[in-house]
Amino acid sequence: MTRILNLNADLGESFGAWTMGSDAELLAIIDSANIACGFHAGDPLVMRRTLQLAKAAGTGIGAHVAFPDLQGFGRRPMTIPAAELEAIILYQLAALDGMARVEGLALRHVKPHGALSNMACADAALARTVANAIKTYNPALILLAPALSELYKAGEAAGLPVVAEIFADRAYLDDGNLVPRSRPDAMIHGAAASLAHVSAMLDEQALISVSGKRLPTPIGSICVHGDGPDAAATARHLRDELIRRGYQPAPL
Amino acid sequence: MTRILNLNADLGESFGAWTMGSDAELLAIIDSANIACGFHAGDPLVMRRTLQLAKAAGTGIGAHVAFPDLQGFGRRPMTIPAAELEAIILYQLAALDGMARVEGLALRHVKPHGALSNMACADAALARTVANAIKTYNPALILLAPALSELYKAGEAAGLPVVAEIFADRAYLDDGNLVPRSRPDAMIHGAAASLAHVSAMLDEQALISVSGKRLPTPIGSICVHGDGPDAAATARHLRDELIRRGYQPAPL
Amino acid sequence: MTRILNLNADLGESFGAWTMGSDAELLAIIDSANIACGFHAGDPLVMRRTLQLAKAAGTGIGAHVAFPDLQGFGRRPMTIPAAELEAIILYQLAALDGMARVEGLALRHVKPHGALSNMACADAALARTVANAIKTYNPALILLAPALSELYKAGEAAGLPVVAEIFADRAYLDDGNLVPRSRPDAMIHGAAASLAHVSAMLDEQALISVSGKRLPTPIGSICVHGDGPDAAATARHLRDELIRRGYQPAPL
Amino acid sequence: MTRILNLNADLGESFGAWTMGSDAELLAIIDSANIACGFHAGDPLVMRRTLQLAKAAGTGIGAHVAFPDLQGFGRRPMTIPAAELEAIILYQLAALDGMARVEGLALRHVKPHGALSNMACADAALARTVANAIKTYNPALILLAPALSELYKAGEAAGLPVVAEIFADRAYLDDGNLVPRSRPDAMIHGAAASLAHVSAMLDEQALISVSGKRLPTPIGSICVHGDGPDAAATARHLRDELIRRGYQPAPL
Repeated sequence: MTRILNLNADLGESFGAWTMGSDAELLAIIDSANIACGFHAGDPLVMRRTLQLAKAAGTGIGAHVAFPDLQGFGRRPMTIPAAELEAIILYQLAALDGMARVEGLALRHVKPHGALSNMACADAALARTVANAIKTYNPALILLAPALSELYKAGEAAGLPVVAEIFADRAYLDDGNLVPRSRPDAMIHGAAASLAHVSAMLDEQALISVSGKRLPTPIGSICVHGDGPDAAATARHLRDELIRRGYQPAPL
Repeated sequence: MTRILNLNADLGESFGAWTMGSDAELLAIIDSANIACGFHAGDPLVMRRTLQLAKAAGTGIGAHVAFPDLQGFGRRPMTIPAAELEAIILYQLAALDGMARVEGLALRHVKPHGALSNMACADAALARTVANAIKTYNPALILLAPALSELYKAGEAAGLPVVAEIFADRAYLDDGNLVPRSRPDAMIHGAAASLAHVSAMLDEQALISVSGKRLPTPIGSICVHGDGPDAAATARHLRDELIRRGYQPAPL
Repeated sequence: MTRILNLNADLGESFGAWTMGSDAELLAIIDSANIACGFHAGDPLVMRRTLQLAKAAGTGIGAHVAFPDLQGFGRRPMTIPAAELEAIILYQLAALDGMARVEGLALRHVKPHGALSNMACADAALARTVANAIKTYNPALILLAPALSELYKAGEAAGLPVVAEIFADRAYLDDGNLVPRSRPDAMIHGAAASLAHVSAMLDEQALISVSGKRLPTPIGSICVHGDGPDAAATARHLRDELIRRGYQPAPL
Repeated sequence: MTRILNLNADLGESFGAWTMGSDAELLAIIDSANIACGFHAGDPLVMRRTLQLAKAAGTGIGAHVAFPDLQGFGRRPMTIPAAELEAIILYQLAALDGMARVEGLALRHVKPHGALSNMACADAALARTVANAIKTYNPALILLAPALSELYKAGEAAGLPVVAEIFADRAYLDDGNLVPRSRPDAMIHGAAASLAHVSAMLDEQALISVSGKRLPTPIGSICVHGDGPDAAATARHLRDELIRRGYQPAPL
């Protein structure tokens, strides 16, 4: 029996004269790229170049939709009426999707970014708005959402194809939420620890909390990051080792 | 022989809490709506509602692409490298096109706005960039451009379907350019004068300058405005009289 | 004994090509203008012209500081770290203050706008951040805050001069908060009802809730609005009648 | 006789989550910092931290005013009516000046950025608008402008204190303009060449063109850059060598 491996990462988060991330390096490692749509990061030219890079690398692409907040990088919680938020998400999906088509690519998934994702993971009504916006745009788009989150559930309820992701470098609480960054044990440090953390969860198809609790969930993708001095090397190690253990890289 | 009448106007130029124009009134008069794409005016919610209004009115829709300049309403000349401008236009086309599809509508035309249009009407290289961006996105989109402009010519050279427009309320110079707004004879005032101006040009399929010079050109659309106290009434009068004279309203 | 009358209103909320409000009309009625600083509304040119209008009218001026959210008109709740929010407020105060100085004016007060005000009225920590930012900029600036709010209390605790305002067209709950706009009795309609509402509260120096409960508070200013068809007329009536009853218009 | 040395550089050009430049490193080398005001780069928090860093380093501060164009980093030529541009400059000066006062600092100079500077160096009318805006805000502010430019002349004509700057890494044409970046000889590469270039011009108090032509001008400051792998080291070398040759570092 083949076990599927999918690594996803955020790409195209430069803006104008400012660069961010090591997109070229990451594209050689990941299977699916979450591309910023110009609301928290990215601009039309950055988006086009990111799409062209992803095409050259053969990487699957998705829309990294976000709150309209460049200065806050989409990380500041905002309260936006549902009708407006739906329009905001449609706009971003349409912009990236149409630009992808120009490059001969097809959008495969959607992954909400930053505060929009965090809030939708905890707030069922907001999660429904996000899921409905995606469904309204294209019901065949895959929603990539944190395992066991309200966002994941809303995607399922809306009839969207949903893939649950885990984070390679974050520890979990007993309720399935991430350990807050304020706690010293929030992050998984180093390639070896990250590999152990991820492979245990993949093998058991369950989140494993800091206290050792198992929360069964399908796991369809692993989120890695490219920022930080060792991030890409850690992601590369994770990928190579999981392939060595029999996992097969695949698009979403 | 039926003579075709097409009136176009700019719509969806509200932004957030600020409203502009009398879109509902105009939609009952015009055949083709140039919808702002969020760069000089419009925001995702305004765009969605404008699309829904246009659908209800059965009005043809087009993208009113512009420089990225909300504060200047896209009226401030900007110099943007060709690759970036192309991406900026693709982004706007894609955003509006995808949102239109959600409403069951199809984008039919593109009309550059404000300073982008003015500059592209006079600058052949810029006009080529605009025409190429449209062609790259969808070569079946109609470019709606001022008659005899560099923009019109660039559209033709790119192989786009092109429709030449005249302005119902603006006088022309002998070279086909608009009389600058700084001159006292720049504007055609009142419904009667506007009708005489437009119908003479339609009958002769030529621009007619303030000095009486005739510049032959196909004329496929008439641009009307909704702002100003009498604008909608003038447009309504123009439409009714032209229909009475045998012109047949039609989409682009 | 002279009783003081101060009417305040929001001004300078146009943006670029979009106009809002009837500033000229309001300036003839109010004593203190809360001027937008470019973050929820206003732009440098609008600000300068508003300052010049206020100077010509002899109206006192204050900074209407807000969240950075033009599209949402500063009405969308945002969560911003304290250090960043403090810098955001300092920036707005400095920009308006310096532009006022150019016109020979001095900033007299600060009134937070929209969601920033609403949140700071209910959240003591946020209120402290706002009060501290004002104090850091200039401890002589008056904080104009809703009576009995956390924001008012934070201003007092910070040692700022604080003036409590009431709203001419809004009803109060028994706890001193405004009746939510979702309730049918949220608004006070018409000039007569507004006058009765306000003069009762002024006479008793207390909020008077919809159930008749009295919540004693100093009242130093009355907030009126200029939008809506009858708003300016209602404000004018309120002013004239209160003067007739012996109140004396005064700056903050 | 003491010869004065003043190095200036652009600082505070990070924005939100995006960082740019090596401000801390530069602050140890330069005498005067041109701080972004939030229009081409910088945001309120970046500005505040940059001011605090400059204070700690004892570096003189100035406002790096720019066109309103974050996405284009203020490098895209824009045409803005004079009254609006004046307001835009006043706003930026006021914002930075007020924030500097909060930190116990006083703004000493103004240096236009990017396209605003380039255009004002060549366009006398635009240069006058810039100079008048600065004078309107505070006639004691020093205008730091490229030697022999229209901007320099406009500052003198307006009665502003003006300091002429040269660029440590750029070659000059015979007419005093910079060699365009499109030409292979536009840049001065390496610490030794830069030092030779600068010290020759300082010694002769003249621009020296690529063809060897001398254009006499007072030279009051040298612009260095912090981006690029060797930039800070080159600036450090320039400073150390000029001090060794008898130049005395000084504020503007």
